[in-house]
Amino acid sequence: MVKVNGINSSKDLEIKELLTLDENGRKGVRVHGMIYNIRDMGDFAFVILRKRGGLVQCVYNKNGGEDEKELLREENSVVVTGDVGDEPRAVNGIEIRVSEMRLLSSPAEELPFAINKRNLNISIENELPIRPITLRNERRRTVFKLQAGLVEAFRAFFSENEFTEIFSPKIVAAGAEGGANIFKLEYFGKKAYLAQSPQFYKQMLIPVYERVFEIAPVFRAEKHETVRHLNEYIGVDFEMGFIESFYDIINMETGMLKFAFEYVKKNYPDCLKKLNIELPVIDEIPCVKFKDAKEMVAAKYNRKIKDPYDLEPEEERLISQLFKEEYNSDFVFVTHYPIKKRPFYAMDDPENEKYTLSFDLLYNGMEITTGGQRIHDYKTQVDKMISKGLNPEDFESYLMLHKQGCPPHGGLGMGLERFLMKLIDEKNIRATSMFPRDITRLNP
Amino acid sequence: MVKVNGINSSKDLEIKELLTLDENGRKGVRVHGMIYNIRDMGDFAFVILRKRGGLVQCVYNKNGGEDEKELLREENSVVVTGDVGDEPRAVNGIEIRVSEMRLLSSPAEELPFAINKRNLNISIENELPIRPITLRNERRRTVFKLQAGLVEAFRAFFSENEFTEIFSPKIVAAGAEGGANIFKLEYFGKKAYLAQSPQFYKQMLIPVYERVFEIAPVFRAEKHETVRHLNEYIGVDFEMGFIESFYDIINMETGMLKFAFEYVKKNYPDCLKKLNIELPVIDEIPCVKFKDAKEMVAAKYNRKIKDPYDLEPEEERLISQLFKEEYNSDFVFVTHYPIKKRPFYAMDDPENEKYTLSFDLLYNGMEITTGGQRIHDYKTQVDKMISKGLNPEDFESYLMLHKQGCPPHGGLGMGLERFLMKLIDEKNIRATSMFPRDITRLNP
Repeated sequence: MVKVNGINSSKDLEIKELLTLDENGRKGVRVHGMIYNIRDMGDFAFVILRKRGGLVQCVYNKNGGEDEKELLREENSVVVTGDVGDEPRAVNGIEIRVSEMRLLSSPAEELPFAINKRNLNISIENELPIRPITLRNERRRTVFKLQAGLVEAFRAFFSENEFTEIFSPKIVAAGAEGGANIFKLEYFGKKAYLAQSPQFYKQMLIPVYERVFEIAPVFRAEKHETVRHLNEYIGVDFEMGFIESFYDIINMETGMLKFAFEYVKKNYPDCLKKLNIELPVIDEIPCVKFKDAKEMVAAKYNRKIKDPYDLEPEEERLISQLFKEEYNSDFVFVTHYPIKKRPFYAMDDPENEKYTLSFDLLYNGMEITTGGQRIHDYKTQVDKMISKGLNPEDFESYLMLHKQGCPPHGGLGMGLERFLMKLIDEKNIRATSMFPRDITRLNP
Repeated sequence: MVKVNGINSSKDLEIKELLTLDENGRKGVRVHGMIYNIRDMGDFAFVILRKRGGLVQCVYNKNGGEDEKELLREENSVVVTGDVGDEPRAVNGIEIRVSEMRLLSSPAEELPFAINKRNLNISIENELPIRPITLRNERRRTVFKLQAGLVEAFRAFFSENEFTEIFSPKIVAAGAEGGANIFKLEYFGKKAYLAQSPQFYKQMLIPVYERVFEIAPVFRAEKHETVRHLNEYIGVDFEMGFIESFYDIINMETGMLKFAFEYVKKNYPDCLKKLNIELPVIDEIPCVKFKDAKEMVAAKYNRKIKDPYDLEPEEERLISQLFKEEYNSDFVFVTHYPIKKRPFYAMDDPENEKYTLSFDLLYNGMEITTGGQRIHDYKTQVDKMISKGLNPEDFESYLMLHKQGCPPHGGLGMGLERFLMKLIDEKNIRATSMFPRDITRLNP
């Protein structure tokens, strides 16, 4: 009978192991990888292997044998045995002088497109259909490695601040954001929807855990095709109870961003180097009221205010520009949005009946977060629903929260792809979603 | 202008802080929470607060005032000021002697059901409609705290083993598992589906990251209503490249389970204590071939083999029982499932043409994981699709993986709710999904 004990018995070394070997250990190492690049030097070839930890250079002495042509092909999977030597010109400062190279598997066809360049000279429209291939490019895979690193950072922050991770259902009976931007599906003969956000569930769990978070897909059936919208994206959501004001939420997000940048600097320096980006430095983030922000931008850039209830994309850009110029901040919280443009669970500003205790976070010209304080009183919530034309009976299980008691609370949702897009300065959000979903795209 | 710096300025203390105060710090502390339980002792009352870190006992001296009746109600949110004292009979060994208790918010109605008992005497059918309330129960919230802890443990294991986290789309153009068990939706005039698993994407990313994982919702439109099926659940998925045999995957899962149990023991001892569970001890896990397992069970328990291609639930239970009795193992890997019952991407066993290099993991009588080695060769995969009646043209982007090269690889998917269900010995999987989705249930 076979028995397994969970102990890895592979002899193959990874890059971090190769870099810490002593003189003896450097002899006769075994390494696997996929051939990323081959530079034929006549008698020998530089063979660059793509491994999970990065690239590693191998020096392969050619023998002119029959099988060599089959062996030395890009995207072959191989196992290499050889000695490790120092080579300052190679990536990571080492190379493997190959004594044996064994073929594990070969592509059936040549690549339709060279993926091993530093910059892939391809439009996003042409790239997306072949994403399974272009992701093999070193820059591409680094983008999404950084994405994984950011998420890891957020979770570490949440854990440190005693947030509990939740898993809320994505097939729901009612949308949290309302409106027509919701995907419908048939659910065993009933009408169902795809969750536009975990809003109701986050709130329901406030009396349970006080602080909760979820990082999970959200679905928006928005019909416009822009460089900043996806129809499915990853929402970074949190909700916290016992807040003294909605600035507690803003402060928590500020702490989260500071933490994440420090975390990534410490744990993903390779990614930052490969992508050649400098992380923004956050000391303080300014907060400006929605109305004031509009007026400041109108005055400074000589614009007319067209829509007093919402920010146009151009206004978001200009508010960011203004706060960059005058406060040297990449981030600005725009607060106190009008009631008219906020959902029914947003708490009104007691000091001004037209506005809510809510905010957006703008990052380099674009909204990346929406949040605010929520109504926690039952009667207030029911009245608000009615004033917004909604029927409280449609929200029976959500209203258990208010009916059975809950502390003052609030939270936010951040779009992961947008955040990453601004961080690495991409122009199209499809660059920071591995397999984006938009109005025309359902594949791959 | 308001500016925020991300530093928490709240004066309220949490339980872990209360437990480490020196004599001076114990005076005049401030604590917030929701009133979980009140024991009226005449002149004073024991008020148990529910906080994010657990329960804490407060001693409140009654003054007979007008407001006191409003103040001392279960599920009120309050802020308490007082001195911390030792009290061995209280939870955590401390209590707060209250000098002031301030009301933040009150429920609009009494609870329909007492939630502060140790055991909620309620059937799952009656409980689920009021889950937003019953989750406030100490045992209930501990179950899902442990769930969060397990997920944290899995991620820590993946990180340590250089897996990269991925976010694959949930709205897809084709199902990975095939068959009728798939939810359909309208996607801007096109037919779309909800992903039955991240299978295709995990595999496509093998040449990119070599090792990937995803913990995310998966959707199965299975029509049967049982105690072990959900129509939406959390899949713990991983996939790894450069395997030497499919036992590498089995070994990785064994390592993951060992790691997770150690992690939870170390980081979530409170949960284990409150739930009164002992974690299984894993030394080695036996692996038995599908065919042999069937025959062993038939012989030992005097059963007839009805379906030679699949395991009945009763057989799963008996296989587990046999391996518990004869090998003292809570876990058993059943390997080499028939081709007939495995999907088109499963690799055939080169030693026996009727079987695949695949496995299920049984845990205390139930399948919690399905995995195996995948086909990596292009021609083999295309031929297999055709032999299964599928059209390779329908899988163009998936087949880029094989066409452009990939190493030998495989992986698995584990159902989080099932794993937790067996771990805490629940009989119905709805007990380990906060807001379960089944054939009749879409709410809350």
